[in-house]
Amino acid sequence: MTTALKDALAQAAAEIDQALDAILPPAEGPEAPLLAAMRYAVIGGGKRMRGFLVLEGARQFNASRQAALRVAAAIEMLHAYSLVHDDLPAMDDDDLRRGKPTVHKAFDEATAIIAGDALQTLAFGTLAEEDTHSDPAVRAELVRCLAKAAGARGMCGGQMLDMLAEAATEPLDEVAVGRLQLLKTGRLIEFSAEAGAILGKAPMPQRLALAAYGRDVGAAFQIADDLLDATASAEDTGKRTGKDAEAGKATLVGLLGIERARLQAERLVAQARQHLDSFGERADLLRDLAAYTIERKS
Amino acid sequence: MTTALKDALAQAAAEIDQALDAILPPAEGPEAPLLAAMRYAVIGGGKRMRGFLVLEGARQFNASRQAALRVAAAIEMLHAYSLVHDDLPAMDDDDLRRGKPTVHKAFDEATAIIAGDALQTLAFGTLAEEDTHSDPAVRAELVRCLAKAAGARGMCGGQMLDMLAEAATEPLDEVAVGRLQLLKTGRLIEFSAEAGAILGKAPMPQRLALAAYGRDVGAAFQIADDLLDATASAEDTGKRTGKDAEAGKATLVGLLGIERARLQAERLVAQARQHLDSFGERADLLRDLAAYTIERKS
Repeated sequence: MTTALKDALAQAAAEIDQALDAILPPAEGPEAPLLAAMRYAVIGGGKRMRGFLVLEGARQFNASRQAALRVAAAIEMLHAYSLVHDDLPAMDDDDLRRGKPTVHKAFDEATAIIAGDALQTLAFGTLAEEDTHSDPAVRAELVRCLAKAAGARGMCGGQMLDMLAEAATEPLDEVAVGRLQLLKTGRLIEFSAEAGAILGKAPMPQRLALAAYGRDVGAAFQIADDLLDATASAEDTGKRTGKDAEAGKATLVGLLGIERARLQAERLVAQARQHLDSFGERADLLRDLAAYTIERKS
Repeated sequence: MTTALKDALAQAAAEIDQALDAILPPAEGPEAPLLAAMRYAVIGGGKRMRGFLVLEGARQFNASRQAALRVAAAIEMLHAYSLVHDDLPAMDDDDLRRGKPTVHKAFDEATAIIAGDALQTLAFGTLAEEDTHSDPAVRAELVRCLAKAAGARGMCGGQMLDMLAEAATEPLDEVAVGRLQLLKTGRLIEFSAEAGAILGKAPMPQRLALAAYGRDVGAAFQIADDLLDATASAEDTGKRTGKDAEAGKATLVGLLGIERARLQAERLVAQARQHLDSFGERADLLRDLAAYTIERKS
């Protein structure tokens, strides 16, 4: 990872945590456990790759950093809700996430369900508030696109395919796995890259280029994640590893083998960077991030 | 119930179901079980009181019925998601809802969690789409208000208080129960009444009057619900009854006794109708609905 990227990621993570702290209600009043669980789920953890994409996308078009931080916080809340629900006993049944107990372990199952629900609500509410952008057309467009990325033909659809794949007797083929991952994680990463262009009212070709960049980075990231699950230890990654093979989960790594999957990820990174060809050197951190997705160790 | 109200409710329910059918993706493709579960949860059931409030509110200000139907559908999806999650084993653990098996019984627990999540997403997405209103400021305002009504200081907060009350050793007092119910069901009913005014760009005093009407109707409705749970049979209501007392749940009926609770509901209905004093006879169905909340048998 380049020093510039490392510094920018750390800076973004700190600022996004500040934004989340300001947006999330304090854990006070009779419903304090809910608010504490929401904060626990989303503050102070994760690489903030999605939020970073928002900030860097927005910077290409001189959109306000304050606005971009609110959108980044909203996407991180949406992402966090999906992890909280995905970790539930009826879903992936995970005890460990980002190196600490999952929400239903640290609190209880009912609290985890409700906290995930309320995080999703707050993500949409945050986008719709005037503080996010003075132009309501921008706010409505952000809500519309996030809903598309997160709904039944996006992230939720991907979650469902993942559950069905685990229960199926026939393994998924490469095309089906690719679609599953595009829905489950790709669409939200694509939207993260696109959101900055929406905030900055970018011309459509540049908005589409950023979205395409996000789509490829997301796909590369997913393969890298599966490679880590197949090859790294829980100590390195802060979550249980080897669980894909254990659960008989279909991944591109399982279908292609480690070497071909790595090559595929490299092709995606190169393609992602090509989408930025019309962008100047201001997009260098985005180029670095694409390269980093397949270099990372956790 | 007046014949006019009965006809209008039936008409609204049919139109809202049509709108839901048009908005919800067909149950096709590899993720078909998710889409089927979403449809199962929200189409063809319930009184559609929330949706009816939207339609009647919109009618006061000559807002487009097509737009109002989309907002009604969005609120019914939001409401349905909350029921699906509330029925889960880790929450209220209910097998029966609207006279048929709950989603996690008809499908499975993971599908119920994801279907609830995706219904919430689609509710917000629907409000943000251009079809709902040509003015993006109206769309953004609808999203903002729904998020407030549904989030940690609204419906989700109420759900949490309900869970905490069940686990607590000290019973809640009247004030705490009132707040719980305002959050858990009141805020969304309030927003349902207000939404038509937002769609119709009503003057603020009239928008606030409709919201206040909705708040009182919601409170009366909740007491009526608890009265039914205490006095009616499952056959009458299509859901398991007597479960509040069984679960030791604090309700106003439990705290005040059946007669005083009934009087309280009647006071709320009278107050709800007073909020409509500045409205002409076009608001008669809203007046009838307020009266009906405490007369109903299911």
